Amino acid sequence: MNKTFKYNRLSKDDAVLLLVDHQAGLISLVQDFSPNEFKNNVLAITACGKYFKLPTILTTSFEGGPNGPLVPEIKEMHPTAPYIARPGNINAWDNEDFVNAIKKTGRKQLIIAGVVTEVCVAFPALSAIEEGYEVFVVTDASGTFNEITRDAAWARMQASGVQLMSWFGVACELHRDWRNDIEGLGALFSSYLPNYRNLMTSYFAITKK
Amino acid sequence: MNKTFKYNRLSKDDAVLLLVDHQAGLISLVQDFSPNEFKNNVLAITACGKYFKLPTILTTSFEGGPNGPLVPEIKEMHPTAPYIARPGNINAWDNEDFVNAIKKTGRKQLIIAGVVTEVCVAFPALSAIEEGYEVFVVTDASGTFNEITRDAAWARMQASGVQLMSWFGVACELHRDWRNDIEGLGALFSSYLPNYRNLMTSYFAITKK
Amino acid sequence: MNKTFKYNRLSKDDAVLLLVDHQAGLISLVQDFSPNEFKNNVLAITACGKYFKLPTILTTSFEGGPNGPLVPEIKEMHPTAPYIARPGNINAWDNEDFVNAIKKTGRKQLIIAGVVTEVCVAFPALSAIEEGYEVFVVTDASGTFNEITRDAAWARMQASGVQLMSWFGVACELHRDWRNDIEGLGALFSSYLPNYRNLMTSYFAITKK
Amino acid sequence: MNKTFKYNRLSKDDAVLLLVDHQAGLISLVQDFSPNEFKNNVLAITACGKYFKLPTILTTSFEGGPNGPLVPEIKEMHPTAPYIARPGNINAWDNEDFVNAIKKTGRKQLIIAGVVTEVCVAFPALSAIEEGYEVFVVTDASGTFNEITRDAAWARMQASGVQLMSWFGVACELHRDWRNDIEGLGALFSSYLPNYRNLMTSYFAITKK
Amino acid sequence: MNKTFKYNRLSKDDAVLLLVDHQAGLISLVQDFSPNEFKNNVLAITACGKYFKLPTILTTSFEGGPNGPLVPEIKEMHPTAPYIARPGNINAWDNEDFVNAIKKTGRKQLIIAGVVTEVCVAFPALSAIEEGYEVFVVTDASGTFNEITRDAAWARMQASGVQLMSWFGVACELHRDWRNDIEGLGALFSSYLPNYRNLMTSYFAITKK
Amino acid sequence: MNKTFKYNRLSKDDAVLLLVDHQAGLISLVQDFSPNEFKNNVLAITACGKYFKLPTILTTSFEGGPNGPLVPEIKEMHPTAPYIARPGNINAWDNEDFVNAIKKTGRKQLIIAGVVTEVCVAFPALSAIEEGYEVFVVTDASGTFNEITRDAAWARMQASGVQLMSWFGVACELHRDWRNDIEGLGALFSSYLPNYRNLMTSYFAITKK
Amino acid sequence: MNKTFKYNRLSKDDAVLLLVDHQAGLISLVQDFSPNEFKNNVLAITACGKYFKLPTILTTSFEGGPNGPLVPEIKEMHPTAPYIARPGNINAWDNEDFVNAIKKTGRKQLIIAGVVTEVCVAFPALSAIEEGYEVFVVTDASGTFNEITRDAAWARMQASGVQLMSWFGVACELHRDWRNDIEGLGALFSSYLPNYRNLMTSYFAITKK
Amino acid sequence: MNKTFKYNRLSKDDAVLLLVDHQAGLISLVQDFSPNEFKNNVLAITACGKYFKLPTILTTSFEGGPNGPLVPEIKEMHPTAPYIARPGNINAWDNEDFVNAIKKTGRKQLIIAGVVTEVCVAFPALSAIEEGYEVFVVTDASGTFNEITRDAAWARMQASGVQLMSWFGVACELHRDWRNDIEGLGALFSSYLPNYRNLMTSYFAITKK
Repeated sequence: MNKTFKYNRLSKDDAVLLLVDHQAGLISLVQDFSPNEFKNNVLAITACGKYFKLPTILTTSFEGGPNGPLVPEIKEMHPTAPYIARPGNINAWDNEDFVNAIKKTGRKQLIIAGVVTEVCVAFPALSAIEEGYEVFVVTDASGTFNEITRDAAWARMQASGVQLMSWFGVACELHRDWRNDIEGLGALFSSYLPNYRNLMTSYFAITKK
Repeated sequence: MNKTFKYNRLSKDDAVLLLVDHQAGLISLVQDFSPNEFKNNVLAITACGKYFKLPTILTTSFEGGPNGPLVPEIKEMHPTAPYIARPGNINAWDNEDFVNAIKKTGRKQLIIAGVVTEVCVAFPALSAIEEGYEVFVVTDASGTFNEITRDAAWARMQASGVQLMSWFGVACELHRDWRNDIEGLGALFSSYLPNYRNLMTSYFAITKK
Repeated sequence: MNKTFKYNRLSKDDAVLLLVDHQAGLISLVQDFSPNEFKNNVLAITACGKYFKLPTILTTSFEGGPNGPLVPEIKEMHPTAPYIARPGNINAWDNEDFVNAIKKTGRKQLIIAGVVTEVCVAFPALSAIEEGYEVFVVTDASGTFNEITRDAAWARMQASGVQLMSWFGVACELHRDWRNDIEGLGALFSSYLPNYRNLMTSYFAITKK
Repeated sequence: MNKTFKYNRLSKDDAVLLLVDHQAGLISLVQDFSPNEFKNNVLAITACGKYFKLPTILTTSFEGGPNGPLVPEIKEMHPTAPYIARPGNINAWDNEDFVNAIKKTGRKQLIIAGVVTEVCVAFPALSAIEEGYEVFVVTDASGTFNEITRDAAWARMQASGVQLMSWFGVACELHRDWRNDIEGLGALFSSYLPNYRNLMTSYFAITKK
Repeated sequence: MNKTFKYNRLSKDDAVLLLVDHQAGLISLVQDFSPNEFKNNVLAITACGKYFKLPTILTTSFEGGPNGPLVPEIKEMHPTAPYIARPGNINAWDNEDFVNAIKKTGRKQLIIAGVVTEVCVAFPALSAIEEGYEVFVVTDASGTFNEITRDAAWARMQASGVQLMSWFGVACELHRDWRNDIEGLGALFSSYLPNYRNLMTSYFAITKK
Repeated sequence: MNKTFKYNRLSKDDAVLLLVDHQAGLISLVQDFSPNEFKNNVLAITACGKYFKLPTILTTSFEGGPNGPLVPEIKEMHPTAPYIARPGNINAWDNEDFVNAIKKTGRKQLIIAGVVTEVCVAFPALSAIEEGYEVFVVTDASGTFNEITRDAAWARMQASGVQLMSWFGVACELHRDWRNDIEGLGALFSSYLPNYRNLMTSYFAITKK
Repeated sequence: MNKTFKYNRLSKDDAVLLLVDHQAGLISLVQDFSPNEFKNNVLAITACGKYFKLPTILTTSFEGGPNGPLVPEIKEMHPTAPYIARPGNINAWDNEDFVNAIKKTGRKQLIIAGVVTEVCVAFPALSAIEEGYEVFVVTDASGTFNEITRDAAWARMQASGVQLMSWFGVACELHRDWRNDIEGLGALFSSYLPNYRNLMTSYFAITKK
Repeated sequence: MNKTFKYNRLSKDDAVLLLVDHQAGLISLVQDFSPNEFKNNVLAITACGKYFKLPTILTTSFEGGPNGPLVPEIKEMHPTAPYIARPGNINAWDNEDFVNAIKKTGRKQLIIAGVVTEVCVAFPALSAIEEGYEVFVVTDASGTFNEITRDAAWARMQASGVQLMSWFGVACELHRDWRNDIEGLGALFSSYLPNYRNLMTSYFAITKK
């Protein structure tokens, strides 16, 4: 029993969103999600960044080469976000601009998603933990070659203190209370959770009769 | 060996699209696809109907009750399509308005998708085969309770002469040749095939430099 | 293309339900369904027999020995049904009493479910097809050792002309039109389809407000 | 090796059962269990609360809206239980009435099940751990979108000190010794474990001859 | 509907068992069964040959090389069976000695199991069908590289008229009636069906008290 | 029973190998095989074409665009093969050069592999069946979006008379007898079947001592 | 990093084998292994107890009732082992005779296997850890209802300090060096690892020529 | 939160690669990877050893017997590496020559891959952790009997402080920055990651036009 456990919830005032290497080429390496599933989840966490007005930092690796450009929808949702096109560092944390962009926010909770999980997500996650940040990995918006690689990556990250989340969990932990904005949260869920959208469709069809 | 096999391809001039019971409530019964996957596929075949200008017929079962209303995007993409809200017939083919809407098109190739596969799709499919139509079921836009039910439904339909397709196969068989409209087909694929979209993103990033 | 396909729908006036060897011991051999899933489906098709007032015939194999007694709920739902405790015939069709019970109904559509699929279901199914019956196997209320055995059994049955169904498909094909009895069918679905029950719960919660 | 491990077993005198957001609408989001499996497990843990006479606390989120009402069987089994319809708090622990209801029992072992796992279960679980409670999550009566989300939620909870259980494990740990009530426990298992029911059916068929 | 279907059951008086290339080396290629599962099934069908006194024919391919010797238990159960060590023919039917051994039995029902399914089983199966034999493939005692290869092999065989069976189905179809030899069949099942053995253990424990 | 079944084996003297659209971009759409598995199988059937000296025809779709160029190893193994870069026809059979290249061989057995299965493989397969060719699809060297799409494509092709094979089955059916070239076939298997390579490694390690 | 990790290997001189509730009835509850797989593993660890001459303790729960008698092979391999038929304690550790039998050995390493994992294995495992024993659970000889229950049970046990092993790992850690008894260990592996048996068959076939 | 976590990255100057028992016979025991997948991953980590010029140590168990010789490609890539053919020690760490070879390098980071995971990998991993080494297990180049055994082995290793990696993660953590050698790393990925190779093929096809 962990008697000294402290539940530091994700906070809209202390969290930063880091989107790492969701590039058109690299995504073809992702095989632990179906393409539709993965696209939905990546856009969902991207939309969370926007909806909760989190400082959001975008980074890519070698985007002029085979890795390809950032998925355009991400850039479109965060047009003014710091955008660090890394010239070669595999671990984004090795890139000064990237770390400085984080430090500049003054925040200590890092929400990370990226491709591929065991490298582009795990490496900066471990680096950040070492420097005292709280790290929350969005597991369903981070993809890799197969489930074995994913499981190993999760295990390594968790052993270091990383917290494994999903985009929906992140959204709910940030929002705290529906009453803060019922319509806004409903619209977010409606866009990225087809079954929740269906519930709303049915509900409003009856109540608006 | 089937020496007398005749390959009657789907034709833009002879095909009708039937969308059966994709209702907000009923879709909660679908468990053989993830919700994101299913939503994507249903919208993809719906968009094919629009893109290829196929006569499209919409029908629902008891939409005022627990089954819920039609998924709104379908109606939005086909605002003028015949829309038959069946008062009780489980097999849409038992509904005269539905069959008349088909007959009025004068076409003989029926593309069917619906919820749930072994009932709302299979029943009209078998009825149509009996009446001499060619029937093409869009397997990935038709959902049901689990894989066992799906497999049994597929087997029964195939034994009757139904052809099992996917939305992408339908699109390609209708289009025949990229040169008929490269941009249009590319846009369709880009919207519903994330990995194809990524190929296009990477390609145009390089060539437009 | 099967130009001469005739869609003989299951009819309340021509169908018989055969429940073969759902015995407490034998069911421990079933591994291609979870126990809860299988119990639900077996009781669902049993309830269909009662709801649609189908002549229903129960049979067991060696019920005094390790195979164990019939699952009691089946007997309880069909207290007056012919009950043939076969002394040794593995294929129920080899038992005169069983075949006579069927013949006595004067019906030609046999709905069969049983344990195990490739023996207790497939053997009488093939025998019945040979004698000119239409046979509909309830795949989700028939269980066996594993998926490989099931797939092989399905393939053999289908090749002989057996139609592969599910309990829900059987119910819908028999019922034809919700208007024949909305409440009754709703109650049946509510009992054996948790997600449909949920739809009804939500719907009536709102409309009865 | 954890030399200081203390095995605090679940105790009928110190445990509370918390059932969180098993609502007719929300359950349509659950895809990591088949609907039959999930319904069985939820009712099983609900029945455990009744059988072991545990203080049981029911709570729902926004039950007047798309999330839908509590599954009625839960309310029926616990008609006098505290019932907190939360007006907006996502984490039930943020609701004073909910926490007070727990505190009022004076107990320190919380058994939690709910929908969805990574939010409605994990959030109050982490909050409770922080406040020094022992927390036992009923994993098979808690559902979510898919297995990836579930795995991440389990990992996060376990890292905080939550104990992952199943309804059967909870029942056995509470009961301690069959001799405390053979018939009662047998009846519980018979209702929610079809294979155990079959063992009993076979056994009594022989011994009662 | 196949109105002319004739159900020719497997008969102890007309069936031959062909065991093809179950060699110690080749079995390492089998990945569509776990090794324990496959060993059990191969020995089970081998034991059926002995129990039902079927003429049994053993054959191997290149057994002096990397393919390795026949699994010894097979030879031990059939010490006097014709044993054709093929010098090079991949399709056993291309080997005169093999075909002659079959013809010598004067029987027309061939039960085939072997490694690998799509070659060592499918090739002689198709050859035998062509020559008018009835062919029954023991799917669970025939293994290959993966499920895709297996599925394709099954489809090809079934299209030619091969009947897909399992060892248990073969045993039951041959035995016809428990009363022909209750103890013998019970012993066979007890050896190769652990759950049936358990049923017998429990049953006799009670009845022999 | 198919009494008129004729087993026309694949023959080195009558078979042509068609490799359709194995392009670097399109392969990123393939998700029903792991990338390593698929690469191995595609190169294996390509190597079979070379080893058995089959006329081999290569074709691509829009290779200058996002679909990307042919996988280079294929071209390298067949440097002088007819190579048809189709300008837009989705069904290769719609391209005269492609069909002429086939006709020029004077052969009637077509072995087809390609990407994606339900389009680039199935369309020309159905067209060829219609024109009286025997068609053998190499299922494990043909890939697509997911297993549902694959299953539907297989079903459609099989219903038309296509034979579903694997690269290993093709190789064995063409080779007929190890004695035709033990070393050559051994080398082929050693390159593309790791477990067979291991058997050879172990065997020669002992025998060469 | 666990700087103080001490690797206390399993030792033939300090280990006890506890086989808990492998009863003919209870095993029908096990669904996370195929019956053949589970039988093999249970007999393998039982045989390890015999081969390594470990003090072995057998216990059952309510063996006169539906749970059924101990699987007979276990008793046969350990005819003189302490055998505690528990009258009602669910956690074997609550039974004084059981704990005394362990204490009497004076050993501190407990190897536990049983049915079902989260109760009959986990409960005594946690109790033993609390009392300072080293506990090694044989995961592949311990079965339960499904994988979710298993995963939760493993997580709970591991969090308490239990070491998760397999029977093969136990055997290898106890044996230390093949030279201690090459033939004996080879015979053990040959009996319970079909693929290892095949390796030996092939090897000796060549070397004994 | 692990406030004292120190992220010691794998370093080309401090890491040793240990390849344990990848022998032609033993590999037939591996069933948790497809043979093609496993061969690719084993050769990939072997190639990493060469590319990053890591001291690499090869060891085998009983290579003259059924276990078979080392996979030849490993030896070919590391012709001058220390090669310890262990005469009988199951745990390579029990072999003085093996440990001395490691000590001689003066390095403290051990990268281990081997067959089978829970024995040949886990045993030396635990021994090394005990002696203060940092241990990184290459999970995707280490194979075993099935996923249950693997999961248990991973859990035991992780609990001791082992870090679970994949070959790609190892390569990226060692390389740090693409700019250290773009072509070399590209070539490595191109050889063992078919999808990355495809990205490069497409990219260079366009840019070199």
